[in-house]
Amino acid sequence: MGAATTRAAGGAPMRAATMRAAVIAALFALPCASLRRAAAPARRLAPRLQSAATAAPACTTVNVELGDRAYPIYIGDGLLTSDATTAASYLQPHVGGSQVLVVTNEVVAGHGYLDATVAALKHGDKGAKLRVETLVLPDNDDEPSEATKTLENLGVITDYAIEKALDRKCTFVALGGGVIGDMVGFAAACYVRGVNFIQIPTTLMAMVDSSVGGKTAVNSRGAKNGVLQFRFNMSAKNMVGAFYQPVAVVADVGSLNTLPERELASGVSEIIKYGLIRDAPFFEWLEREGVEAMLARDRKALIQGVEDSCRNKAEVVALDEKEGGLRATLNLGHTFGHAVETKSGYGTWLHGEAVGIGMSMAAHMSHELGWIDADLKERCIALVKKARVPAFLPLYSPMDVASFEAIMAVDKKVADGALRLILLKGALGNCVFTADYDKDVLKKTLEYYCDDAQRTRDD
Amino acid sequence: MGAATTRAAGGAPMRAATMRAAVIAALFALPCASLRRAAAPARRLAPRLQSAATAAPACTTVNVELGDRAYPIYIGDGLLTSDATTAASYLQPHVGGSQVLVVTNEVVAGHGYLDATVAALKHGDKGAKLRVETLVLPDNDDEPSEATKTLENLGVITDYAIEKALDRKCTFVALGGGVIGDMVGFAAACYVRGVNFIQIPTTLMAMVDSSVGGKTAVNSRGAKNGVLQFRFNMSAKNMVGAFYQPVAVVADVGSLNTLPERELASGVSEIIKYGLIRDAPFFEWLEREGVEAMLARDRKALIQGVEDSCRNKAEVVALDEKEGGLRATLNLGHTFGHAVETKSGYGTWLHGEAVGIGMSMAAHMSHELGWIDADLKERCIALVKKARVPAFLPLYSPMDVASFEAIMAVDKKVADGALRLILLKGALGNCVFTADYDKDVLKKTLEYYCDDAQRTRDD
Repeated sequence: MGAATTRAAGGAPMRAATMRAAVIAALFALPCASLRRAAAPARRLAPRLQSAATAAPACTTVNVELGDRAYPIYIGDGLLTSDATTAASYLQPHVGGSQVLVVTNEVVAGHGYLDATVAALKHGDKGAKLRVETLVLPDNDDEPSEATKTLENLGVITDYAIEKALDRKCTFVALGGGVIGDMVGFAAACYVRGVNFIQIPTTLMAMVDSSVGGKTAVNSRGAKNGVLQFRFNMSAKNMVGAFYQPVAVVADVGSLNTLPERELASGVSEIIKYGLIRDAPFFEWLEREGVEAMLARDRKALIQGVEDSCRNKAEVVALDEKEGGLRATLNLGHTFGHAVETKSGYGTWLHGEAVGIGMSMAAHMSHELGWIDADLKERCIALVKKARVPAFLPLYSPMDVASFEAIMAVDKKVADGALRLILLKGALGNCVFTADYDKDVLKKTLEYYCDDAQRTRDD
Repeated sequence: MGAATTRAAGGAPMRAATMRAAVIAALFALPCASLRRAAAPARRLAPRLQSAATAAPACTTVNVELGDRAYPIYIGDGLLTSDATTAASYLQPHVGGSQVLVVTNEVVAGHGYLDATVAALKHGDKGAKLRVETLVLPDNDDEPSEATKTLENLGVITDYAIEKALDRKCTFVALGGGVIGDMVGFAAACYVRGVNFIQIPTTLMAMVDSSVGGKTAVNSRGAKNGVLQFRFNMSAKNMVGAFYQPVAVVADVGSLNTLPERELASGVSEIIKYGLIRDAPFFEWLEREGVEAMLARDRKALIQGVEDSCRNKAEVVALDEKEGGLRATLNLGHTFGHAVETKSGYGTWLHGEAVGIGMSMAAHMSHELGWIDADLKERCIALVKKARVPAFLPLYSPMDVASFEAIMAVDKKVADGALRLILLKGALGNCVFTADYDKDVLKKTLEYYCDDAQRTRDD
């Protein structure tokens, strides 16, 4: 059994059923190198084992291969929510010191996931020796979640850690969606210049994107203090942060039970990206059954979708951790989508919704450039719609060509004045990251999508 | 000529005199590996060369060997302040993109160093293509400089960079003392998750300590917002930050001309540390002539002191960048000194002054433990006094044993409940970092230094 399996099985005492499930999960888990397979992915999920005592949840593990910063992503149904023994076996082996700070928000705590996390951490002999502190950040309807991802709230987290006298051997746990993950991850990167960090994503978006790969950040205060409001608004998103890898990610699709429909769809939209940029068989599975099954909250489909997304992301991140080039391809549709988010302001669009429009635009532009055929463009747009996110701007969107241009001009992917875009090129599963495209085609794409006649095409 | 020399000589067009000086400096520069020499350091300074045009300042280079993050520290008299051609030759080769942000404060700008830096950056053909933005932070007598090193001001810097639409290829330049260097360095580490970063230290403390080694940070807001005031006050110092290396450090001892006496002495105190922990010949030079000559602002002595300090620090950092153990020895006297700073609040003590008392206490405790002889203890205390910083607490200091104990209990070097200290052991130039010492001796040392009878011993 390899190192990955050992870690997946965890260090805490495990019952026989849990152990058997872990072994089976390990047997089914494929290494990252086998990612770009020719055939559609086999169902790698271990069957649920019934012991005399309880059912031990199946777990599949994706390893992010980053040398001495390598870490496992545990994916399964009930890893956190089934029982404390199981959850402890995934969490406790990754706790370094004797102090833990779990940060979450009111909504996630309200669903009981904080209690489950604390119970898992304090479980058994090792748990009895841990001091577990918790910090529940406010979450209210008056303020979009993204607007709380600020340097100010970063200070709330680090001040709390100081108040609790947490030392440099402590472990931060981010329990929640992308906002919690990004902010707590950045806090872990900064607190006494870096402490242990575990991600427990509780939204589909966080499971397939933000919790994997070590991008942490907060937004600039520009969006709040009004100084930069006019020119930059939300383009100040994720402008202050760090590349900082967690020591483990525990993705329990059971926690998606409580996720609102719209957020579920947003996550599915982000998943489509992986098929488009590098994994044709995955895209075909999504078309055939994956998208529909995930939207119906089929647990096996969700595990499959999360696993294939994480495998793809892990492989890209392992090749290009600091975004020298390849990693940028994970931002397919994001430059267009980001402009849409920015113009509308925090909270209007969910990230995956804006990315849906963005992927549609990228496919359209790629086709206009003659880089992909009409069939692929249509398949892309159809799958975005199937995911129940918009593929076109709505009728009353404030978006216009000038706004697109102004906002994209300050995108993080601008280098020396040239905007680099991720576009599709060739057969399904291939893309390029380039500033070498016909600028007129970009302009015409913007005009096409901003034209009133296109704005109702989702109906 | 090796890689270091090429970099030291710079990429920008240089006049013959500058080139000759660089070559000579390179010939005199020794590799870091030769640091722990048996004999007193030879004067490695290149003689000033007189060309028909101008005198090109001599430069010695210390390389910080950190693999793909290795960087040079240029040390000399007039590297920044003599003329734009010279300064350009040190700065411009390290500017990556086409945008630069120079951050300084009112005092440093008032001395003309900002103008010199901007002129150097904009000098010549390469300079003409650079966009150089400047940000001058306020510096007033009402607020101690250290109190401005906050997450809030970090946000001021990053917001400004966003406002000026600086992209991820831009370069941040920190021009000033330790507060500017720590804060701008952390901003460079965070802005779009990391941009190019150059340090131009203008205080002796920054040249010999904070600008070298990549420790960047801001203080917690605890000290300002009152919530943590009672328990933590300044122990929240440097609690939020990153290990982030600059691409170059330009230390022009000419800029020490404008440094107040007290700050000069504070820097000299910090320099003594290197002799005590690992470089007996350097300590002997400081005893013999170095301390006095530096306090008299002798340029050659200042270059020597900065160079030997940087060489020692560079070697330690190269061996232990993230402070696994060895690097902690650079904090000799800092745990005691930090407690003194903390109790008194920002601005009462300069850092090197508190470290002076701390080194005296460490020497006293080491002797009480029987780890060093009385002669070494006395030499240490005598040299601290010679540096014109206190070796004992002043008569009306609020410091008492309970305060020492309370503040040291939350030191960053506490691990799993045990306080690790840097103490001297054996012959001059040897130290240990350990939690394995007689706790009674620590207690007695604190009592000795807090005893009123000792408080006037500096007189």
